[in-house]
Amino acid sequence: MNNIPYKIFLEESELPQAWYNLRADMKNKPAPLLNPATHEPMSVEALSTVFCEELARQELDNDTREIPIPQEILDFYRMYRPSPLVRAYCLEKKLDTPAHIYYKFEGNNTSGSHKLNSAVAQAYYAKKQGLRGVTTETGAGQWGTALAMACSYFDLICRVYMVKVSYEQKPFRREVMRTYGATVTPSPSNTTQVGRKILAAFPDTTGSLGCAISEAVETAASEQGFRYVLGSVLNQVLLHQSIIGLETKTALDKYGVKPDVIIGCAGGGSNLGGLIAPFMGEKLRGEADYRIVAVEPASCPSVTRGVYAYDFCDTGMVCPLAKMYTLGCDFIPAPNHAGGLRYHGMSPILSQLYADGYMEAVAVPQTRVFEAAELFARIEGILPAPESSHAIRVAVDEALKCRETGEEKNIVFGLTGTGYFDMTAYEKFHDGLMDDYIPTDGVLKEYASRLPQV
Amino acid sequence: MNNIPYKIFLEESELPQAWYNLRADMKNKPAPLLNPATHEPMSVEALSTVFCEELARQELDNDTREIPIPQEILDFYRMYRPSPLVRAYCLEKKLDTPAHIYYKFEGNNTSGSHKLNSAVAQAYYAKKQGLRGVTTETGAGQWGTALAMACSYFDLICRVYMVKVSYEQKPFRREVMRTYGATVTPSPSNTTQVGRKILAAFPDTTGSLGCAISEAVETAASEQGFRYVLGSVLNQVLLHQSIIGLETKTALDKYGVKPDVIIGCAGGGSNLGGLIAPFMGEKLRGEADYRIVAVEPASCPSVTRGVYAYDFCDTGMVCPLAKMYTLGCDFIPAPNHAGGLRYHGMSPILSQLYADGYMEAVAVPQTRVFEAAELFARIEGILPAPESSHAIRVAVDEALKCRETGEEKNIVFGLTGTGYFDMTAYEKFHDGLMDDYIPTDGVLKEYASRLPQV
Repeated sequence: MNNIPYKIFLEESELPQAWYNLRADMKNKPAPLLNPATHEPMSVEALSTVFCEELARQELDNDTREIPIPQEILDFYRMYRPSPLVRAYCLEKKLDTPAHIYYKFEGNNTSGSHKLNSAVAQAYYAKKQGLRGVTTETGAGQWGTALAMACSYFDLICRVYMVKVSYEQKPFRREVMRTYGATVTPSPSNTTQVGRKILAAFPDTTGSLGCAISEAVETAASEQGFRYVLGSVLNQVLLHQSIIGLETKTALDKYGVKPDVIIGCAGGGSNLGGLIAPFMGEKLRGEADYRIVAVEPASCPSVTRGVYAYDFCDTGMVCPLAKMYTLGCDFIPAPNHAGGLRYHGMSPILSQLYADGYMEAVAVPQTRVFEAAELFARIEGILPAPESSHAIRVAVDEALKCRETGEEKNIVFGLTGTGYFDMTAYEKFHDGLMDDYIPTDGVLKEYASRLPQV
Repeated sequence: MNNIPYKIFLEESELPQAWYNLRADMKNKPAPLLNPATHEPMSVEALSTVFCEELARQELDNDTREIPIPQEILDFYRMYRPSPLVRAYCLEKKLDTPAHIYYKFEGNNTSGSHKLNSAVAQAYYAKKQGLRGVTTETGAGQWGTALAMACSYFDLICRVYMVKVSYEQKPFRREVMRTYGATVTPSPSNTTQVGRKILAAFPDTTGSLGCAISEAVETAASEQGFRYVLGSVLNQVLLHQSIIGLETKTALDKYGVKPDVIIGCAGGGSNLGGLIAPFMGEKLRGEADYRIVAVEPASCPSVTRGVYAYDFCDTGMVCPLAKMYTLGCDFIPAPNHAGGLRYHGMSPILSQLYADGYMEAVAVPQTRVFEAAELFARIEGILPAPESSHAIRVAVDEALKCRETGEEKNIVFGLTGTGYFDMTAYEKFHDGLMDDYIPTDGVLKEYASRLPQV
């Protein structure tokens, strides 16, 4: 087909009106979240002390296939959605491949990534419940920015605990959040008990995501009208992100294109879970078959080298237990530059699907990722986020294989975001100062031995 | 009309196939460029020693109404164009105005602004002429980034002289250019005669745009197969940027919307000149009437408080003389944060149109600009560049006037780019550390008195 445009934009009338709940089509449902003390499955009531009620319901709903998107969220989505599905003609030409490459670009909004799709939903439900505000943690800052934008729109207070080293190294990220009216506190801070405790013990600490989560959770619990929100891993987040896949499928169907392989980067799994949702649904129902590939950093290989077991979602061990591929909740990944992929676990939904053989996973070292990122930036004109570039790497490798075999495969990948705030990483790469970190089997075994006994 | 979508995307088949040369419809043509030594009008031959031949021809062509866009440029445009025309429903609601607000958003490409529209054209013609590369200067960095992207695409060497203080304060901008393979040299440097001379005299200088231009021109002149390129002011640049206005008009026509007022920020005039081109054409031909408003910073008020006279385009006084509204080529604007608007002159085309009464101009202080920027970011979800926010300020003011009068005006403005690399300015604004600078009449008179006698 030669009349496929560079960018397939859907009409606003083609914007999906309902999220697709992949769990409804899974024979083996994701394992339930467990109370960390009693190891009993969490009920909606129990989860509602942490999350908004509607979100707690969505978290546990394994049956409703389609969940209508409220009008207020659709109104917000319309400001930046439908997002383009791009045919990478220039990249195909450069690679001299017979493959057709498509990418769904989620970076064309100020938060710079797909995170906004769930942030706006979570903020909406918080507002609807009459809450005053929400708290969260952020590392690289994409999630914090998205949440700040969503809270600003719905007039909610937004308190972000940002890992101290990121707060200091990424002052621009911080300022974007402040522009949206969010309070950004470097973590650990003296605004919480846990923060003061850690500061007393380690006055020079640069903070960690685990500590920031603990502070965000404590703040939400101790203030009237607040709840804690999370940007990935959870079933509810994958539900909201299904909009990525639904739009992708509508756009491809429009031009009669059937993907052979669908590729996404995977940290907590929100982007990949969203992108593949309707395709995986067809696969689960036996209506179609697709290769589906999760790409993770070699430095934090939860799916490819982790254990499928119950583990804490947070390093502070205060959140519920989830059954997932995990490296252990105290695993500290090496300082690679894909902050959004430095999570010890993987979405319970994706973990179950991987365990059941419905998807593949591959881990790639970061220098190869940045080679692909730079190639892509130069050829396709978009400066990709380091996280997204994991998917680019594997898409390029697949396209190069097609050059060998002569296959005209349709390759689809998720371009989750832009790298404007990641130039320090690009600089290291340009200057030849970027390392690859790959944990040894011994290290991974050591962490795995400390998993909770459930 | 209620069925206007939030974002009007044109089909790729609706992408304009020719640039529109506004000069063809001007009764009073813009005054010719003059040789700085002889004060004779520059010929194509003379200009071709500095610019590519085809660009020199475009610079002097006051007659051809439509100039076809070469296929190679169209192919590049398709990667990020047509750009969306957004109906600012959320902003309208927030302002409680009966006005309808539309903005043409040019920031959805990695260079972050409209500059790419001309960069790709200039790089294409350089390549076509068989040149090895181009040189340029950059201040804030949007133009340098755009040119680096375009040169990378056409496999041309790109040498950017970046004002030293920006080079040091904006390391991320520099890294984006390096990602696209450009050489970025802080100016003044020891790579040129003029640079060495300045460094010897002022070893601690932080550089200036004038100095960077001089270095870029010297490098282009001294190396085989190089030419110098410029991102604004010139007639050829406005020609390329007409694509902004042509798309805007197509999108508005599609929904039967006739603008009442069209607003754009104006530094050298490339964005405004492009946005208004087809509308101004109708106005010049007497087919329609529109209010057209140029917005400039109060700290650098070339149109509102400058003199309409021949002046040098550069501070180093080596480039041709142009007749334009100018503050004097050695005018040094106060350190405001809209780097792209800190130019002493204004496009000769726009200057002539203003002199002939076809457009208005207004100057705004930067704190009011940042108030509008923050409001816009929070309501419309896009973090605007400081430059673009000048247009936002005036569009908001117009919409508020409509609230008073009850008029349902159609307000269209150009949102030229994003502010991801301008967070230092936002930070100053948030912290209450931003000043307004307005030059006194005495200062402006002093500079005006030194204009060249032509």
